[in-house]
Amino acid sequence: MTTTLQSLYRPSRLPVARALALRAEIEQFNADYCAVLDAGDIEQWPHFFTSDAVYRVTARENADQGLLVGLVYAQGRAMMHDRAVAIARTQMFAPRYNLHMVTNIRVTHESDSGEIEAQANFTLFQTLVEGATTVHMVGTYYDRFVHEDGKLLLKERQAIYDSSLIANDLVYPL
Amino acid sequence: MTTTLQSLYRPSRLPVARALALRAEIEQFNADYCAVLDAGDIEQWPHFFTSDAVYRVTARENADQGLLVGLVYAQGRAMMHDRAVAIARTQMFAPRYNLHMVTNIRVTHESDSGEIEAQANFTLFQTLVEGATTVHMVGTYYDRFVHEDGKLLLKERQAIYDSSLIANDLVYPL
Amino acid sequence: MTTTLQSLYRPSRLPVARALALRAEIEQFNADYCAVLDAGDIEQWPHFFTSDAVYRVTARENADQGLLVGLVYAQGRAMMHDRAVAIARTQMFAPRYNLHMVTNIRVTHESDSGEIEAQANFTLFQTLVEGATTVHMVGTYYDRFVHEDGKLLLKERQAIYDSSLIANDLVYPL
Repeated sequence: MTTTLQSLYRPSRLPVARALALRAEIEQFNADYCAVLDAGDIEQWPHFFTSDAVYRVTARENADQGLLVGLVYAQGRAMMHDRAVAIARTQMFAPRYNLHMVTNIRVTHESDSGEIEAQANFTLFQTLVEGATTVHMVGTYYDRFVHEDGKLLLKERQAIYDSSLIANDLVYPL
Repeated sequence: MTTTLQSLYRPSRLPVARALALRAEIEQFNADYCAVLDAGDIEQWPHFFTSDAVYRVTARENADQGLLVGLVYAQGRAMMHDRAVAIARTQMFAPRYNLHMVTNIRVTHESDSGEIEAQANFTLFQTLVEGATTVHMVGTYYDRFVHEDGKLLLKERQAIYDSSLIANDLVYPL
Repeated sequence: MTTTLQSLYRPSRLPVARALALRAEIEQFNADYCAVLDAGDIEQWPHFFTSDAVYRVTARENADQGLLVGLVYAQGRAMMHDRAVAIARTQMFAPRYNLHMVTNIRVTHESDSGEIEAQANFTLFQTLVEGATTVHMVGTYYDRFVHEDGKLLLKERQAIYDSSLIANDLVYPL
């Protein structure tokens, strides 16, 4: 198997004013997305995606080698919904609070058809009931957005996490 | 006693452009608010509130059940000032550095009278002198802002923290 | 030696609209700056500075006493380049992932000649390969920016870190 070590850095190819306008919109999207997840309304999560969207969670060490096989893969809202239900059930047995912090949003490309490439850094803090708060995962979203009926939706969210020790594969949505 | 488990998620009811403009202003407010606290100028803290404002710190597990009785409660600038003085004194005996990170700002409502509802996620890092940096608290602000003489002020800041182990009740302002 | 304990708080002296416009631009700058560093493209780092820029990393306890002698000092792109090369070499032996989160941006001054003073809070997370993610450093950037050929560049970045235990002096760029 041949893999190439590649830089995850993507230069931005947008005019500054356009990048700023899109960034403000995406910042709002990410804040809404995380507010739903942090409130535990996990079954609303698939509604932030287009019906055929891809959601993928990949370890940084795999992404660096161009390997996108990952910890989690879901295609389409139905698969995301199944996953949401499974996670909701797990949370009943080991309740915990989730808190996302999203920063460093960059808009790197907008195609003629209106598809937008962006990225952002995230931290997911988890607090077990009666326990301490820990940095559960940190990493970067690599996203593709589209507008549907004037509403921003994710066509692809690829969450690449730096953290190398993940306790279980029913990881909360990033 | 009957309590209802309730979602802390608040949908936004604002036009996008208005939400963006208010968010930028609130982001600046929060940055100023935290800069004062992180610099240790804790006695300036009450000036970010209206004279009759409410400041409340509540554990997530209580907030989820609709209980707003909390770790900290202060009403009005005078009570906040007393609290600031008490904390300043404690800090002399166990000096530490505070650093706030605020992200995920959402503006969820603006009333006809100009009262603004917003939220934001926060992390408070603490560093003891000669010690390590720890995640002291993470959580969400639920705020009500008003303008007085063109200046944004908090009429209510309710900080709901996920972290379940808090060492003492003289917690630094969030 | 006489040193005075001084507040690191800088009040903002800019009109609100101008502060907001500059903050958006600086937020974009910081996101690009960190994206390059987090991707490991450390040799690109000096290009975010003017040719004669100053980069300095100082412990909070020294900065509070007005002492700017610090952990790291580099003047000019050549010195920064040497430093980048040295760090890149170290990383080969003890590979780790870096992730910066930057928030709480404040623009505090703009001079007639167009020099901009700003600050921001940062967290640097580090993840050792096969290890856990830790909060490596938290602190505040105190920056001076200028525009060269329409491009924002750092004339000075002073990173003041709260964290008091730093393992080695080849600290990754902040």
